[in-house]
Amino acid sequence: MKPNLWAIIMAGGSGERLWPLSRRRHPKQTLRLGYKRSLLQLAADRLKGLVPVSRTVVVTTRNQAQLVRRQIPGVAGRRFLVEPASRNTAAAVGLGTVAVLKEDPEAVILVLPADHVIRPTAEFHRTVRKAARLAVDRDGLVCLGVQPTYPATGFGYIEPMGGLILPGGFRVKRFIEKPQLPQAQQLIKEPGIVWNAGIFCWRGQVILAAIRQWLPGLYQGLEAIQRVWGTPEGKRRLSRLYRRLPTISIDVGVLERSRHVWMVPTGFAWDDVGSWNSLAFLHSADSQGNIVLGSHVGEETAGSILVAREGHLIATIGVKDLIVVSSDDATLVCHKAQAQAVRKIVARLAANRPLRKFL
Amino acid sequence: MKPNLWAIIMAGGSGERLWPLSRRRHPKQTLRLGYKRSLLQLAADRLKGLVPVSRTVVVTTRNQAQLVRRQIPGVAGRRFLVEPASRNTAAAVGLGTVAVLKEDPEAVILVLPADHVIRPTAEFHRTVRKAARLAVDRDGLVCLGVQPTYPATGFGYIEPMGGLILPGGFRVKRFIEKPQLPQAQQLIKEPGIVWNAGIFCWRGQVILAAIRQWLPGLYQGLEAIQRVWGTPEGKRRLSRLYRRLPTISIDVGVLERSRHVWMVPTGFAWDDVGSWNSLAFLHSADSQGNIVLGSHVGEETAGSILVAREGHLIATIGVKDLIVVSSDDATLVCHKAQAQAVRKIVARLAANRPLRKFL
Repeated sequence: MKPNLWAIIMAGGSGERLWPLSRRRHPKQTLRLGYKRSLLQLAADRLKGLVPVSRTVVVTTRNQAQLVRRQIPGVAGRRFLVEPASRNTAAAVGLGTVAVLKEDPEAVILVLPADHVIRPTAEFHRTVRKAARLAVDRDGLVCLGVQPTYPATGFGYIEPMGGLILPGGFRVKRFIEKPQLPQAQQLIKEPGIVWNAGIFCWRGQVILAAIRQWLPGLYQGLEAIQRVWGTPEGKRRLSRLYRRLPTISIDVGVLERSRHVWMVPTGFAWDDVGSWNSLAFLHSADSQGNIVLGSHVGEETAGSILVAREGHLIATIGVKDLIVVSSDDATLVCHKAQAQAVRKIVARLAANRPLRKFL
Repeated sequence: MKPNLWAIIMAGGSGERLWPLSRRRHPKQTLRLGYKRSLLQLAADRLKGLVPVSRTVVVTTRNQAQLVRRQIPGVAGRRFLVEPASRNTAAAVGLGTVAVLKEDPEAVILVLPADHVIRPTAEFHRTVRKAARLAVDRDGLVCLGVQPTYPATGFGYIEPMGGLILPGGFRVKRFIEKPQLPQAQQLIKEPGIVWNAGIFCWRGQVILAAIRQWLPGLYQGLEAIQRVWGTPEGKRRLSRLYRRLPTISIDVGVLERSRHVWMVPTGFAWDDVGSWNSLAFLHSADSQGNIVLGSHVGEETAGSILVAREGHLIATIGVKDLIVVSSDDATLVCHKAQAQAVRKIVARLAANRPLRKFL
């Protein structure tokens, strides 16, 4: 049986660690980051030839809806789900699944984030096709696993059981959440261990059954939503029902608990653009090891990431391994080793009323 | 004899090392740097009670004239000399002197830069009065000497001869231009050695005679200017004559050559605001050793100088001893030890046509 492949693009992330470019009303996936297209647009482009627009669903949040719709009008014009409130990925996946199953009870669904970078696209397509076959053959929950290239501490890892199962998948033994550096260094030495790309493939019925088993509260909420969907007062009631859904990720809520999880190792290069250091994945460095977007002049400047907005100049003297990002109203200067701590700055802005305008 | 004290405010400097706040059309002396008044306004304020506005001359350059006039309308409204071109300080002093002597041949003239900071003002007044008496008593060229507080490499030093001469002055043995650090460390240990504040006092006739002796080309040019001054075609001819004047500083051209130079040691604290590090003289640091003008949030940030323009936020993480300055269209990130190299950035902007707009 050739499965009907659907896609749910998860476009609700905030991307706080890319502040000050990533903002409440201009979140990470809508940024271009030196490309001609935003991460969201690249994610939609990446589905061409794999999943038709007519079978692609976009899930986003209220404050991002307008911008997302403007960036991918062709995709978002058709099946566009706006979460009444953010309830993490389990609820978003559930909402998208309910929408898809209403139209196609036999759907096989690819779930993918809008803010990752993958190359080359052909290898992505090959891997997804394998994952879809495995999802159908085994009625399993299938994750895509990326070959690690360095001891990343910002990614999750997947340890497979031995024994390849056609078409090229493994049963998952365990998930390892963002490890400390020594553990990460150990993990990348072990054969078969991969990064969890956060890209999943499963039959709609299968993920719904898994949600019913592991997150019964979410399942009941989704059932209630399904009943009111399309009715005259549906929109208002959906909003109330959605707000009551549990806030948990699909990884923690379902995948780490289920015993029917599979992993297909991929040959594509991948990055989740989780911090400014990801620019080293997106762009190549100059002879001084600097990655520069926009106008820059430097004296004795090395190993740095320099991002100037249009029309703005960044000048650096005697700096090494720094991240400098200038937006219209804010400037970040951060040591590369502390790129994760940008989140702390964002938290402090949220906690301080006069500074909230910089969120 | 009580001398008629006049003042020439030298307001033509560019202050390249305070880029990106100091700009071609917004030079250093017009910046506020965290005070309510600009350096130029503070310099004019400092003369109150010492030299009347009616005896104060402002010398500036063409591209700064409008802004200077706007900032100190009371002073600049009266005696305002606009250099047709920049010819360094000997020509500017000469031009101001010619203007003063035309009105008061017995004038004693205080020459002072518009972009230094001095405190307290009362001590400045006391020192200038001593210097004026010495200038009249000895017909000498009198410099003000500041007690060094650290081994500065950005200032000139003055070594006096032994033997105090009333009212509290010394003959000058030699000038030492900006020394390297080891020499500076040596110099500040020697008793009597002072920083050259670049503030001078002399009789108008005496400096003009010294210019005649040591810079005859400048003297002839000034004589020609004096002849056309106030005539119907004076303005046009002055411009042509001025452009032909030699470009040299009054220090190198006259003071380092003359044998009639005196120094009055001062008790005031002084800084020439020669680089961003001078903000440590202008403002006190917080508990982390940071000097902050404008909005800033920091994580693990110490010993840094952070200058955000109005409405802009600077966020720093894991940085030490950095200078970060954000202007509307440019951002500087510079190690404190390299604050002098800001000049190199400015030189590169001048040499690169597409970047010239950032000058």
